[in-house]
Order: sequence, then structure tokens, then C-alpha cells
Amino acid sequence: MDSIFAAQPRSTATDEQFSELLKRPGLRIERILSTGQSSPAGFWYDQPEGEWVLLIQGAARLRFADEAVARHLQVGDYVDIAPHRRHRVDWTAPGQQTIWLAIHYSTTAAAPSFRTSTS
Amino acid sequence: MDSIFAAQPRSTATDEQFSELLKRPGLRIERILSTGQSSPAGFWYDQPEGEWVLLIQGAARLRFADEAVARHLQVGDYVDIAPHRRHRVDWTAPGQQTIWLAIHYSTTAAAPSFRTSTS
Repeated sequence: MDSIFAAQPRSTATDEQFSELLKRPGLRIERILSTGQSSPAGFWYDQPEGEWVLLIQGAARLRFADEAVARHLQVGDYVDIAPHRRHRVDWTAPGQQTIWLAIHYSTTAAAPSFRTSTS
Repeated sequence: MDSIFAAQPRSTATDEQFSELLKRPGLRIERILSTGQSSPAGFWYDQPEGEWVLLIQGAARLRFADEAVARHLQVGDYVDIAPHRRHRVDWTAPGQQTIWLAIHYSTTAAAPSFRTSTS
């Protein structure tokens, strides 16, 4: 058992920190720590996989190329980012660690459907 | 954009609340709200899919059939539950809402491997 708050490295203004929490075929769960970083000017992520993100700690502004205004994310907010939907991180809260949970998922696999189940 | 804290129904002592946040082939992201519930006596979950859970709010005790002692989960703790690993929820904190994020994933699909990527 691990904690998503565990082992936060000392903040540096230079690099975001990526930690893989789970990797399975077609699925990758990742923790991302930001400390005031944003995407480089003019840079857009354009990813072949889908990505579902949940803000665990801190605050951020997530911008989509097809939207005029960035979305302000607070703790608990989640967004699904479709494959190849261009996006960037305009801002993360300075002076504190922002924690993202990112679920990267393949949309190209011929995966079986789920049965309805609980738990 | 939605919040994992949104629209928490008034607590009742009788039922857990399940909300599907995302469904894709081989992947289902779910929010589970517990208010003091535990699994019925003698009941074990035995699921064909893998399940990765993260405790978002509250506290819980998660018991595996192959472990003598339940694991006490606090906010931020996560656990991967392999397919068919029998488990049950021994306890959730009474008088408050415990929020689980559950990532249900298929392990039977012939899904493509991920390339290393960021975001």
C-alpha cells in the first residue's frame, strides 16, 4: 500500500516529477508533481492515447487549443482529454506542490466490454 | 469539468453510491461513496477485472482473504487489486462520507503497449 502523497521530492522550480503508479496493457496510472511549472510557450500536448486527469492537490489552469479560455482546476476536479485533443498547462500554483493523477488509456485496443459490476 | 466532491447525496446508512465517471473499452473509472458501510458478513468480492483504488476522502479498512489483517487506508492511499484476489471492505469511517476512486481495468484484452510519454 502506498500513498499518493508519499515521497514528494523537495520542490524545484525546474522540473515536473512523473511517477508511474501502475502499468497494465493499455493502461498507465501516473502521478505528476508540479511546482509552479507550466508548458513551454507555444507548446501543445498532442497524445495518441486518452488521458483522464484528477487534481489531487494544489491548483492549475488547463488550456485546450479548441477553447478560448483555460479551465481553472481545483482539488477534486477531473477532466477527460480525448486522444489528439491539443492541450497545455497554462499555470500551476506557485510555491506549492500540485499533484495530478493521470490515467493514460489506449483507445485503439480491441478490448472486451465490461460487465456491470460493483466494488 | 466535474469535481469528484460534487453532488454528494445526503448520507444514508443503508447504501453505498456508485457513480461512473468514465467508461472506455477495457476501462471504467468510478466514484464510490461510503458512509460507514462495510461488506456483508462473510462476503468477498471476487472480480474478473483488475481494480486500482485510491482513497480520496474519509478512511477505510480493506481486507484481503490472503492476508490476516485488514489494511487501514487513509486519504491518498492506493492499492491495486489483482483479478480474482478476494477482498472485502471491513469498515468505513462512520458519520462521514468516504470517497473511493476505483479504476476497473481489463486484463484479458490484447491491448497495445504504451510508448513512454508525458503529461
